[in-house]
Amino acid sequence: MDVGFIGLGAMGAGMAANLVKAGHRVTVWNRSSSGSDRLVALGAERAATPAQAASGAALISMLSNDAAVRAVLIDDGVVERLTPGAVHVNMATISLDLAKELAATHRRRGVGYVAAPVMGRPDVAAAGQLNILAAGAAGDIERVQPLLDALGQKTWRFGDEPERANAVKLAANFMLACAVESMAEAIAFLSAQDVPATAFLDMIANTAFAAPVYKGYGRLIAEERYSPPGFKLSLGGKDVGLVLEAADKAYVPMPFASVLRDNILDAMARGEGDLDLAALAKVALRRAARGQAR
Amino acid sequence: MDVGFIGLGAMGAGMAANLVKAGHRVTVWNRSSSGSDRLVALGAERAATPAQAASGAALISMLSNDAAVRAVLIDDGVVERLTPGAVHVNMATISLDLAKELAATHRRRGVGYVAAPVMGRPDVAAAGQLNILAAGAAGDIERVQPLLDALGQKTWRFGDEPERANAVKLAANFMLACAVESMAEAIAFLSAQDVPATAFLDMIANTAFAAPVYKGYGRLIAEERYSPPGFKLSLGGKDVGLVLEAADKAYVPMPFASVLRDNILDAMARGEGDLDLAALAKVALRRAARGQAR
Amino acid sequence: MDVGFIGLGAMGAGMAANLVKAGHRVTVWNRSSSGSDRLVALGAERAATPAQAASGAALISMLSNDAAVRAVLIDDGVVERLTPGAVHVNMATISLDLAKELAATHRRRGVGYVAAPVMGRPDVAAAGQLNILAAGAAGDIERVQPLLDALGQKTWRFGDEPERANAVKLAANFMLACAVESMAEAIAFLSAQDVPATAFLDMIANTAFAAPVYKGYGRLIAEERYSPPGFKLSLGGKDVGLVLEAADKAYVPMPFASVLRDNILDAMARGEGDLDLAALAKVALRRAARGQAR
Amino acid sequence: MDVGFIGLGAMGAGMAANLVKAGHRVTVWNRSSSGSDRLVALGAERAATPAQAASGAALISMLSNDAAVRAVLIDDGVVERLTPGAVHVNMATISLDLAKELAATHRRRGVGYVAAPVMGRPDVAAAGQLNILAAGAAGDIERVQPLLDALGQKTWRFGDEPERANAVKLAANFMLACAVESMAEAIAFLSAQDVPATAFLDMIANTAFAAPVYKGYGRLIAEERYSPPGFKLSLGGKDVGLVLEAADKAYVPMPFASVLRDNILDAMARGEGDLDLAALAKVALRRAARGQAR
Repeated sequence: MDVGFIGLGAMGAGMAANLVKAGHRVTVWNRSSSGSDRLVALGAERAATPAQAASGAALISMLSNDAAVRAVLIDDGVVERLTPGAVHVNMATISLDLAKELAATHRRRGVGYVAAPVMGRPDVAAAGQLNILAAGAAGDIERVQPLLDALGQKTWRFGDEPERANAVKLAANFMLACAVESMAEAIAFLSAQDVPATAFLDMIANTAFAAPVYKGYGRLIAEERYSPPGFKLSLGGKDVGLVLEAADKAYVPMPFASVLRDNILDAMARGEGDLDLAALAKVALRRAARGQAR
Repeated sequence: MDVGFIGLGAMGAGMAANLVKAGHRVTVWNRSSSGSDRLVALGAERAATPAQAASGAALISMLSNDAAVRAVLIDDGVVERLTPGAVHVNMATISLDLAKELAATHRRRGVGYVAAPVMGRPDVAAAGQLNILAAGAAGDIERVQPLLDALGQKTWRFGDEPERANAVKLAANFMLACAVESMAEAIAFLSAQDVPATAFLDMIANTAFAAPVYKGYGRLIAEERYSPPGFKLSLGGKDVGLVLEAADKAYVPMPFASVLRDNILDAMARGEGDLDLAALAKVALRRAARGQAR
Repeated sequence: MDVGFIGLGAMGAGMAANLVKAGHRVTVWNRSSSGSDRLVALGAERAATPAQAASGAALISMLSNDAAVRAVLIDDGVVERLTPGAVHVNMATISLDLAKELAATHRRRGVGYVAAPVMGRPDVAAAGQLNILAAGAAGDIERVQPLLDALGQKTWRFGDEPERANAVKLAANFMLACAVESMAEAIAFLSAQDVPATAFLDMIANTAFAAPVYKGYGRLIAEERYSPPGFKLSLGGKDVGLVLEAADKAYVPMPFASVLRDNILDAMARGEGDLDLAALAKVALRRAARGQAR
Repeated sequence: MDVGFIGLGAMGAGMAANLVKAGHRVTVWNRSSSGSDRLVALGAERAATPAQAASGAALISMLSNDAAVRAVLIDDGVVERLTPGAVHVNMATISLDLAKELAATHRRRGVGYVAAPVMGRPDVAAAGQLNILAAGAAGDIERVQPLLDALGQKTWRFGDEPERANAVKLAANFMLACAVESMAEAIAFLSAQDVPATAFLDMIANTAFAAPVYKGYGRLIAEERYSPPGFKLSLGGKDVGLVLEAADKAYVPMPFASVLRDNILDAMARGEGDLDLAALAKVALRRAARGQAR
């Protein structure tokens, strides 16, 4: 399939490579051209402008946030360049408002639009094992399914309205932050009872909470290994902010999200935004005047 | 091994049966004698009083809460009846204060004391597949290890001070309630975006949150099946209360536990204490004026 | 003094009238012309467009929110019409971001800018007894002081940066909502102990809490008189939202503001946004399954 | 009137003195005899034991908490010594459970019981200007009214059930802590906008919040004067704990009380329990990494 790919960051680079390996004709664009060198070496073509990447049957974008999507796709005219009948697959985690705006724009122009944010860290992306959360017209999703199959282990579908996939992604990231905060408070509690965090986190991650989230973040917390970050605390804060913003408009009280907001701000105020989200444990221990984080 | 067993409720009945099947000589006592009939049929002996169950090399108690432990073990003189050198294995979820009190009493009398609360529902107990959280003197635990092996798939050890195992159990139950609340808020949020709870909960329970807690409670929430309860909301509230009480004494702020407290009270105020803890989803949906719980 | 006045709502109408009565030459503009009839009858001149009201030595605007300020003052070109040396006095409660934007625009054009939000309900405005929270260059404030003296009992000054007065106003409205929520939870608590809300609220409003906020809102809560609203719950929610937005950018955890947010959303979800902010008491009683709000 | 007075702490000393000055025959007892010297000098008689103070027509007790009430009044046999027909006026802030227990005990023995906790700091007590929150049988209150008139400026009555006065006192202290927390968060917010706390707190304490609570605590916060404490943070925490305990039993969610709990624990964990309750401002500023409290 003839596909453009915009955004070759930690996630996008591995994803685009998997498309090339699967035999698709991939035209890539990245803000810094050095980012695309490796892809070109693998067999991708380099687009001189983002718009040049938008001439195929499909366009995949994997940009970091609302601002980047707006700057590259809307302001730089990529959206207008897509030909009627093409399908745009937007895999970024963006706000519901921007998701709705993009869906409306594409609908007006006869371009297919699939929102397909993903679950998985960069190593999972590179291995083609992402879980893809997709929403959009069934026909559109089916047309790009070969692409999604090259990127992920499974495509989970959430109906016709693209923004629903973004809502699902935000809800999943909210739950992830909740899981981290619950471990953080639990070990602050246990620290006061002289129970080592390691023993507890090892036990739960192998029994009732034997899931990737608890295994991964539990290890980071047990080892107090907050840097380099896998998922930055500041980005977790951004996603919690998007959840609260959408919840506000729909009148949904979310007290756990409010606690997350306050504790993430507590960390940000100390310049810990570039640590891993697991550093919520530092906040809990600091408030209890416990441990290394005293 | 010659072992007494006090407390044949939903959990204890299956556990005592496993001891009998493993070849131990088990003397059982239960508040209602009908509760012990099945065990006697399996080959256990019936004690006329709780104290009679306390004459062997080990005593296991599986009572429902602080009040029952106090009434049966302390006020009825069971504790005083244990012979020096015997080991008492207390598998109930009790407060840290009572745990410390029992440890001190046993120490004074030369009786071994192992706190060994468990993770797992009644069906898991019956299958001998519990996860056992044990703390106490290493020698004491080793002496009763054959009994624990008949009851669980694994014994997780948390050091010499018995109350630490109780702290671990409370922390685990706190995390469980957090997991339920995070699902509750997530589906209230998604409901406002017209994403069905079922689709979302199915996805997370098979990806990043693929753990028993999310699979089990996720299904109850998706099916709005809050009765009969597996783990009663009122009991969840009791455990959160024990966590807050111990956190209070140790000066540990736990904002997630505070939210759980308020939301459980919201449910209790409506007479929902006998529903499953999964009914926290009703609270979240009700506050957002959503769904069946409107 | 030759002064324009834009925005003759419940607050602005009485304020503009006080300027006329104090002998100033007032040119008024309002979205609906009927709104300005009474002022013209008092001796004010009617501007055909907002820009026409901007030709004097001073311009006072009293619009309801960010959107109205943006639509009337910025998009309709009022700001550009002000002559260098004139002073714009913006008395609305707006976001800190918009406050900073306006300050920068005026500074660039050599126009004085004073942010002067007020405390007081419409009857207080009509009586010329407002408390005015002013910030801006000292010289600018001094030039318009005769106008402010006609509008309020006192001008409180908060330095040179106009947006600081807006921050003060938001902080004051946050505290007001906190006072209401604290009464709401207190009477839910007392209701469960069979203490009547009236007796309690009367006592505190005449002892330690003998201040206008507690007397006024206490009476509304005691009498369950939530309509017609003096200060709409939805507007209280808007101000709490502006506080959280600014706190977010400055990394300030505000857990009371988070609780207010959730409880206001609980009310909004039930269509109670047009009730008085005092209806937070309905939320507290409803959650406790108490009182009329059961 | 012939009256015993037990508990001559910071509050009780001034109160007992006012009874003596009003011409009542007062027999005093205090844990440390030095505490009663000044009263004896004023004309009071000294009781050798608490029970000796309980032989008159009335007994007033002003002990610091549940434990002291239990130790002195119940364990030391004071309650049993009261003669049928006498009236016990308990002016301490105690738990609702203990209040109910005392009421039942007195009822059984034919002794009148009036719960009469007070609002006001030691200087107000010394000036005889307390506000007294009284509940109990009307006849009992009337009999001791001459005593109450010597102690306070006004007696507020809350019905026949003594514990209701205790509930009112707890609710008032909860509101006081809410007022302090709301000021704390407001100045943390304003500090980030470079608005000085002093200017803001001065303004609100003279406008919408012109009440003793805001004037008094506002000054402490503005001056960062947290020691010596007027009302210790640890005692504020104790009262919030009593509120939460009673709210728990009655199923009343109180999210503001939960926030207070967590923030008071945050301070306690840092050894700030002996500072004034106003030190909640330190917590808010610390979390935002602001000001002297950084």
